[in-house]
Amino acid sequence: MIEHKNLKLRDIGEFGWINRVRSRVLQGRSGILAGIGDDSAWIKSQGSLLITCDLLIENVHFLKDIHPPRLLGRKALSVNLSDIAAMSGIPQYALVAIGFPQDTELEYADELMEGFLEVAVEHKVELIGGDTTASEKLCLSITVFGKPAHKKPVLRSGAKPGDDIWVTGTLGDASLGFELLKKSQTGELDLSDFHHSSLLVKHFDPDPRVEAGIMLGKIANSMIDLSDGLISDLGHILEESGKKTTVKAEVYLDKLPISKDFKEYFKGNPLDDENALSLVLTGGEDYELLFTAKQSSRSKILEFSRKLDLPISRVGRIKKGKKAEVILRDEKARKVKHPRLKFEHFPSQERQIT
Amino acid sequence: MIEHKNLKLRDIGEFGWINRVRSRVLQGRSGILAGIGDDSAWIKSQGSLLITCDLLIENVHFLKDIHPPRLLGRKALSVNLSDIAAMSGIPQYALVAIGFPQDTELEYADELMEGFLEVAVEHKVELIGGDTTASEKLCLSITVFGKPAHKKPVLRSGAKPGDDIWVTGTLGDASLGFELLKKSQTGELDLSDFHHSSLLVKHFDPDPRVEAGIMLGKIANSMIDLSDGLISDLGHILEESGKKTTVKAEVYLDKLPISKDFKEYFKGNPLDDENALSLVLTGGEDYELLFTAKQSSRSKILEFSRKLDLPISRVGRIKKGKKAEVILRDEKARKVKHPRLKFEHFPSQERQIT
Repeated sequence: MIEHKNLKLRDIGEFGWINRVRSRVLQGRSGILAGIGDDSAWIKSQGSLLITCDLLIENVHFLKDIHPPRLLGRKALSVNLSDIAAMSGIPQYALVAIGFPQDTELEYADELMEGFLEVAVEHKVELIGGDTTASEKLCLSITVFGKPAHKKPVLRSGAKPGDDIWVTGTLGDASLGFELLKKSQTGELDLSDFHHSSLLVKHFDPDPRVEAGIMLGKIANSMIDLSDGLISDLGHILEESGKKTTVKAEVYLDKLPISKDFKEYFKGNPLDDENALSLVLTGGEDYELLFTAKQSSRSKILEFSRKLDLPISRVGRIKKGKKAEVILRDEKARKVKHPRLKFEHFPSQERQIT
Repeated sequence: MIEHKNLKLRDIGEFGWINRVRSRVLQGRSGILAGIGDDSAWIKSQGSLLITCDLLIENVHFLKDIHPPRLLGRKALSVNLSDIAAMSGIPQYALVAIGFPQDTELEYADELMEGFLEVAVEHKVELIGGDTTASEKLCLSITVFGKPAHKKPVLRSGAKPGDDIWVTGTLGDASLGFELLKKSQTGELDLSDFHHSSLLVKHFDPDPRVEAGIMLGKIANSMIDLSDGLISDLGHILEESGKKTTVKAEVYLDKLPISKDFKEYFKGNPLDDENALSLVLTGGEDYELLFTAKQSSRSKILEFSRKLDLPISRVGRIKKGKKAEVILRDEKARKVKHPRLKFEHFPSQERQIT
């Protein structure tokens, strides 16, 4: 290994860097006929394949000065594993395309890659190729392949009237964490005084629900990962599922799973605080699974929850409807208005493209 | 279709854009079980698969103000098809991840996508997924899948002592084109007075050598596409091929294929001009094929050249050697020194990471 001290990525060059990554990747897994080091990777494939890709960009998805590179590398792979999980897939291979600023320290790049490879080992994913280039801002584009754990993967399009709506984990933590990080940058919040670290961890290092996705594959009628927020992602399920018979969703506000740290930060009932409620309903990047299943599957799902040691909460119901809409109900089943609900088909005039 | 005039991408939002792209993609090709619109794409796969990805970044790979968006969309796919071609593969599927600046005009994004889909249709490639996000600079990350045209793809590692070295097309045009474009930006060159448009086309809209790659699949011992320049890419072949018996390459300068426009721009013999020679030997992005083959294949290769109506030139020879090096020889077989040749193993201390 080259001694790091003060070395920059440009000192070893693109090919030096590729060889460095290559030397860290375990080679020779069966199924890989040619990996890093050729124009294309070449893999054996049988049956069917799941494929997903995600782009993470500095200042849009992460703040480079605050996000530790190891955790950024972990996250870059995790968010893609989350997409494979949402199809009930077993992840297998990954490609990494990275645009590095010219003055990137070799140590920074190494740590980023170390984080990536940590998650790869945890989930038995092998790095088979990619691209490295210069870029003004750091950007990471990861492609992940997997195979369906069962005969068919779970699509967004299978939600049926009568289905329960479920979510794993808790909601809103990642987006609250990101808000707090931005506040720490402007000096509004001192992170060293901050005790709700689970909120930050959820943003820095989300845990893809791969095991849960595999277990739920035989039970879930439809599934998606929560990357854009509950209302938006539930909207995708309604749109995809409603092509023959239009379906709507009723969501019970008092059943939404909210973490202890989230509650403590808002000191009381987050549902009474407009900002808190917005984070829970529309905050992105939780990377939890949102799925629908028949009511007869309830006990099985709660059994999975215990086995996985992961909360899985029943938060609503799919119904026949005139249009693909999400209706919020309070603990007395009264309709609750929320500014984000006025959009049909979930366009994002008021949102940034993310 | 929404009326374009003055619309920006943020007016229709991420999901509006995804639905817009989706509506332009021909659906229902056999082999695609689930395409755009789910967490992952789901494809049937049999045998083996080739996979490659490339990242194109504003100001590094292209100048956004000058590169017409339709041609940029074409190029983004073409450079990946070139990688599949270099393995003797038949391209099949693509994923597109794009980071768009917030104020991107819808018309710009549409034209970019139109160019991409044009090349996709030309090469029967189907778009199956991707990602769209905000970004300060435009960036495009494309992943392409294909299947080997023959039983085995052609790897970089198969070059043998005695092999001829061949290249398709001409060398240096794309990098000269890029230089001229940069000159036009600083006012050194007025493009409206410029007559050597093939040089610009080669940078703006390279033609991936897919057909040639497929034809050569049974004959080439090793193959690579020229993305980093002749010396660097030949270096990759030597490194990968030399793991058991070290091989070196002799390149005949007077046999290097140089276009009419390139010669005219340099008014005379480009090999006498140091800058011209550097472009021919080390200029990147030609996206031509560089391959080695047995001497007994010469007539077959020239027959392919006629069939494809594409020059294929024999430019050198692979030999046993003490180290993986490229030796340049002039028309009298004398060794020629070139500053880029002093690097062993082709590190890029003096190059930018690209």
